[in-house]
Amino acid sequence: MVDIIGLVAAILTTLSFLPQTLMVVRSGQTSGISLTMYAMFTTGVAGWLIYGILQASLPIILANAITLLFATIILLLKIRSVVKSRPRGLPAIV
Amino acid sequence: MVDIIGLVAAILTTLSFLPQTLMVVRSGQTSGISLTMYAMFTTGVAGWLIYGILQASLPIILANAITLLFATIILLLKIRSVVKSRPRGLPAIV
Repeated sequence: MVDIIGLVAAILTTLSFLPQTLMVVRSGQTSGISLTMYAMFTTGVAGWLIYGILQASLPIILANAITLLFATIILLLKIRSVVKSRPRGLPAIV
Repeated sequence: MVDIIGLVAAILTTLSFLPQTLMVVRSGQTSGISLTMYAMFTTGVAGWLIYGILQASLPIILANAITLLFATIILLLKIRSVVKSRPRGLPAIV
């Protein structure tokens, strides 16, 4: 029972980034998304992946590898739109 | 070393939702945020919290309680804006 709750939770939190990724890829719209969030989140998920590899934990590796893929796509599209929209060298806010 | 990587990863993924929450609260702008993502993610994090409580794991409880707070705020603001902007009973897309 406890394992099932953990498994369902892992599937939900991992796959939840799929609709956000599809939304950003389809619309190209990233203005409502926080660059700071995705920079921190992507780094954190990469950390979890390294942690899973060092612990040889397949569930942690799988969940975080998939989440890392989605988070990286969102982060790269956000960075691209920030770079494109930034007026001559002014720093971007959030 | 492995524990430090896990701890840093947990802090990053947990606190990453703070800038997104602040952004949404300050701007009230939720159009770039996927309702499906936050519905799935919030449910998943609640599942992780229950899992942590059942496992009596303080790090899992703490990380997911904080993330749940941020994710719930974002989800509620998103739902509010979807309900407000929906024209007479038409279903909302994504």
